[in-house]
Amino acid sequence: MTRKNWNLGIDIGGTKTFFAQIWENGNIGNKKKIETKASRGFDAVFKEILSEIQQFIEQAALPPQSIGLGIAGQIIQNDSYLKRAPNLDWNNIPLQKMVYERFNIPTLIINDVRAATWGEWKYGAGKEVSDLICIMVGTGIGGGIIVQNKLLTGFSGAAGELGHFPIELAGPLCSCGNRGCLEAIAGGWALARQAKEAIVKDRSSGKKILSYVQDNLERISAKEVLIAAQDGDPLALQISTKAEEAIVSACIGFTNVFNPSRILMGGSLGLALPNLCEKIQQGINHLSMDANRGIVQVMPTAFKEGVVAIGAASYAMDKLSIS
Amino acid sequence: MTRKNWNLGIDIGGTKTFFAQIWENGNIGNKKKIETKASRGFDAVFKEILSEIQQFIEQAALPPQSIGLGIAGQIIQNDSYLKRAPNLDWNNIPLQKMVYERFNIPTLIINDVRAATWGEWKYGAGKEVSDLICIMVGTGIGGGIIVQNKLLTGFSGAAGELGHFPIELAGPLCSCGNRGCLEAIAGGWALARQAKEAIVKDRSSGKKILSYVQDNLERISAKEVLIAAQDGDPLALQISTKAEEAIVSACIGFTNVFNPSRILMGGSLGLALPNLCEKIQQGINHLSMDANRGIVQVMPTAFKEGVVAIGAASYAMDKLSIS
Repeated sequence: MTRKNWNLGIDIGGTKTFFAQIWENGNIGNKKKIETKASRGFDAVFKEILSEIQQFIEQAALPPQSIGLGIAGQIIQNDSYLKRAPNLDWNNIPLQKMVYERFNIPTLIINDVRAATWGEWKYGAGKEVSDLICIMVGTGIGGGIIVQNKLLTGFSGAAGELGHFPIELAGPLCSCGNRGCLEAIAGGWALARQAKEAIVKDRSSGKKILSYVQDNLERISAKEVLIAAQDGDPLALQISTKAEEAIVSACIGFTNVFNPSRILMGGSLGLALPNLCEKIQQGINHLSMDANRGIVQVMPTAFKEGVVAIGAASYAMDKLSIS
Repeated sequence: MTRKNWNLGIDIGGTKTFFAQIWENGNIGNKKKIETKASRGFDAVFKEILSEIQQFIEQAALPPQSIGLGIAGQIIQNDSYLKRAPNLDWNNIPLQKMVYERFNIPTLIINDVRAATWGEWKYGAGKEVSDLICIMVGTGIGGGIIVQNKLLTGFSGAAGELGHFPIELAGPLCSCGNRGCLEAIAGGWALARQAKEAIVKDRSSGKKILSYVQDNLERISAKEVLIAAQDGDPLALQISTKAEEAIVSACIGFTNVFNPSRILMGGSLGLALPNLCEKIQQGINHLSMDANRGIVQVMPTAFKEGVVAIGAASYAMDKLSIS
């Protein structure tokens, strides 16, 4: 039992939910990871989350100053309710109010990648950078933007969906309903889809990729595409190269629009694509508007684990003007 | 001779330079338009601009509180010098300092479309809108963004180049050196280029367009493409439809990234493309992220003339904290 001020950071993901005691310097104290098991439905998942929060509170000498809840979804920040979390199939839930009313502790919900951006900006690879763009390339592609030391929220709190900038006219269908989004070309699910589609058309092109999944087409994920690409497989290389080109192109666009001084690349896929930061840096140095060249520094995110919880807790603390 | 506070707004364009006395309510007093005649070179043009400024000052009872200078170019706002104005072929000029030192009146230089955005936000179609995007589609495509009632400047003052977001991978070459920029598909020069290229390939496809320019291919501009499209010409319709689709697609992207509550469409081409605002509105309503739908209102810019001078003068006044 420690008698220090802390904030509770929670990262509700599609498969795991992570709870962590976040000290005011951003360090993690106690932590716990549970299976989200979203298929149980919202009520059951939420009940378990409340019970875990209760335990964290009981185990500490002082209650947390705030609860910051990061979630992979679109949040209407002005009303602080969850509009839609596709991975969890949660829609229109006044999550912030529900947690606040249960514990009577100031609570804030925030999109998970915006939370991670805040965490990287406060304690990670974006420290002391006034104008920052953070892109997380995983199964989906999310983003967060810091403008003059403030998180860009937009009019209603939904700003920052960098993965849903359409970068190819009449491009492939995206999960959001639009076509040609960055995510629909370079997100993990899109890499898997492209591999499957190519293999259905020409099974022989997928020999290498299929060898990693016992010839079971449905089990192909971005991971197999990446491994095959590293092994020189032409189909995998074609898919991963296009993904890289898409990311570089979008980053040039974000640079021209935001004129940041740093771009952070993160996410499992963002960190796994070989030399991606260098390729983005080169693209910006050569093809962004003159006024940006030499100004933007591209680098990987710093945190390996827990950054959503860290960022959510610290954003809650900062926004709720605690301490 | 009036004894009222005013600011001098100047719009230095590739062909014309416009000077106007801007009252504090945004209204225009005395004004004058001259030919820029950029081919004379910087020294001659600048000398004439200084002489016009001098005359404006002499004609008024009080000197202007500030001079705001809008220019079609990339400006390094932190050092307030002009990095590059392609239409004028001016590069690396400490314009702000040069004007200030001549008259000893607080001076600010600003990109012309950012100035226009500020003017529309203060006095035009963006009044009382906290989060605004303004896109001007003319020969080129420029933009300005208001984030929480502030002009988005970025790290070094170059933010807002909405026309240079690449929206087509491996798309047509842009004037900026990149490929597939919005401007390279939907800017006026790009419409003309597409028409010329198609007609060179197949002269019969260009009969209608060529009929407006006495069969002189080189004289084709966006204007002829637009007139031919309105007349049902297939080639012109194909080009203008693609331009519209590109603009709609980019606006969906800007919406997902910025979550604005209003988008203003302006510029000669932006206002001439039929029902463009309605098409953008529909695109956003149907294809932007859920959280944005129903939030964004798309409308044309309000000012017909002088908005760059108005915006530059009022931005100078606001930024220099005058009055």
